[in-house]
Amino acid sequence: MITKDEINKLIEIANLSEKNAYIFKSHHAFGAAVLTTEGEVFGGCNIDGVISSLGSCAEVVALHNAVAHGRYEIKAVLVIDEKEFVYPCGTCLQFICQFQQSSKEKIKIISAKINGEYLMKDLTELLPNGYFSDSNAEKLSAFKNK
Amino acid sequence: MITKDEINKLIEIANLSEKNAYIFKSHHAFGAAVLTTEGEVFGGCNIDGVISSLGSCAEVVALHNAVAHGRYEIKAVLVIDEKEFVYPCGTCLQFICQFQQSSKEKIKIISAKINGEYLMKDLTELLPNGYFSDSNAEKLSAFKNK
Amino acid sequence: MITKDEINKLIEIANLSEKNAYIFKSHHAFGAAVLTTEGEVFGGCNIDGVISSLGSCAEVVALHNAVAHGRYEIKAVLVIDEKEFVYPCGTCLQFICQFQQSSKEKIKIISAKINGEYLMKDLTELLPNGYFSDSNAEKLSAFKNK
Amino acid sequence: MITKDEINKLIEIANLSEKNAYIFKSHHAFGAAVLTTEGEVFGGCNIDGVISSLGSCAEVVALHNAVAHGRYEIKAVLVIDEKEFVYPCGTCLQFICQFQQSSKEKIKIISAKINGEYLMKDLTELLPNGYFSDSNAEKLSAFKNK
Repeated sequence: MITKDEINKLIEIANLSEKNAYIFKSHHAFGAAVLTTEGEVFGGCNIDGVISSLGSCAEVVALHNAVAHGRYEIKAVLVIDEKEFVYPCGTCLQFICQFQQSSKEKIKIISAKINGEYLMKDLTELLPNGYFSDSNAEKLSAFKNK
Repeated sequence: MITKDEINKLIEIANLSEKNAYIFKSHHAFGAAVLTTEGEVFGGCNIDGVISSLGSCAEVVALHNAVAHGRYEIKAVLVIDEKEFVYPCGTCLQFICQFQQSSKEKIKIISAKINGEYLMKDLTELLPNGYFSDSNAEKLSAFKNK
Repeated sequence: MITKDEINKLIEIANLSEKNAYIFKSHHAFGAAVLTTEGEVFGGCNIDGVISSLGSCAEVVALHNAVAHGRYEIKAVLVIDEKEFVYPCGTCLQFICQFQQSSKEKIKIISAKINGEYLMKDLTELLPNGYFSDSNAEKLSAFKNK
Repeated sequence: MITKDEINKLIEIANLSEKNAYIFKSHHAFGAAVLTTEGEVFGGCNIDGVISSLGSCAEVVALHNAVAHGRYEIKAVLVIDEKEFVYPCGTCLQFICQFQQSSKEKIKIISAKINGEYLMKDLTELLPNGYFSDSNAEKLSAFKNK
């Protein structure tokens, strides 16, 4: 269950992060924010790569930010685009799957616009047959927020 | 020019970040820290991927953390390993090259141990023929720390 | 429309490729095969990375193989696992989306077992809100098989 | 030891592969070719990604092509650019390091132009402190060309 306050906080942080997008190539800024099970929020923006495999989506950067702070149990990932409703790409959704394996609650994926409008779905609606690792399941579920 | 205080700060943050490494597969923790031209420090740890392309080195996570905060001009990247002196891998060095294109000073790469010992080299010593983007040079150099 | 002969050919090539999997870390072999609109088949296997971002799924390797031969218009991607039915991960599905933008037909995703059993779905069933690039749409649709 | 005939074959295949580059974004084509210890050559071209982490360098595609055919022991990697001498980026060099761990000979890196001119260096000259995996060393060295 995500509260309206939590969504407002996610939109605020995603909007702030979006302004830092390092987009010398794509010129298309995205912002993202991750909500932990304790209610903390970590932001991210997209990063273009000079080398075509070294860029990163805003959602991944926000998740890296959370992990760097010792947070692995998350409740929601929000992505914001200036122009339209977008959802995390397949790569981001797949990356989020491993945090689902570290988290007890079903992770929510939220698509927002700068004006505050949003849509919300379950991770499994967006990636119904995502890859979950049976062999790492126990180890992943042992990661608790610090 | 990196001061002893800056190196101590980098080692401290890299050590703290290393404890958050999300290493359910490799069981080998690394910590990293990025020093901006204004003297701020951002940390990162390594993150294993359930999918074999979705993991990330500690240095990349630290750089993502810096960019998410609007910092693109950096002076140094430090990496710490419990056991031995390691340098950033080729992927990390190549990623750092694009921050070299956003930064005026020559970026220093520091390899440290938990006990405080360290070695320092120039980025160009470790990747003497790294790829720098001529076509994006002007845009990259326009990114200034916020 | 995929014929039974085409599926048999995909399974055969995916099985052969699976034996080449470079899996010094995961010890879990996958094979994949890509069917072009002209009926050619290109194989791939999974490749572990010493560095946690440098591995690759079998489906991506098979698509790289097709592109290296000048093939961008594809009809189907099949993945095979010794033990059970698996579907391409979110990263692979997202990568396939750009070939969907180069292809006229709806790309089919096939999950097969070594014994010849298989399941088939549309790409859009597995990644209903995948990211498609409007700004690159025209250029992508201009790539024709050589 | 690489013969003149082997270099000519590498340049020929890299040139052919370069024409297949899937470059809807960067518009900058690269070709690459990998020489195995038995003298076989596998080609690759660069592939742009709609998603900024999903592109691939020509050298990686050529290596994927070799592995998909069961070849892990390599002697040389060549990269070709229409305009100037370029060397593999840090990511490609790091990826080649794991094939160095599967190969007995020191891998040569060759930078060529379409007109046949070339420069040759050792992998270790271009990435003097590349990351080699001690913990996977034995397993990597067990991969033999099929």
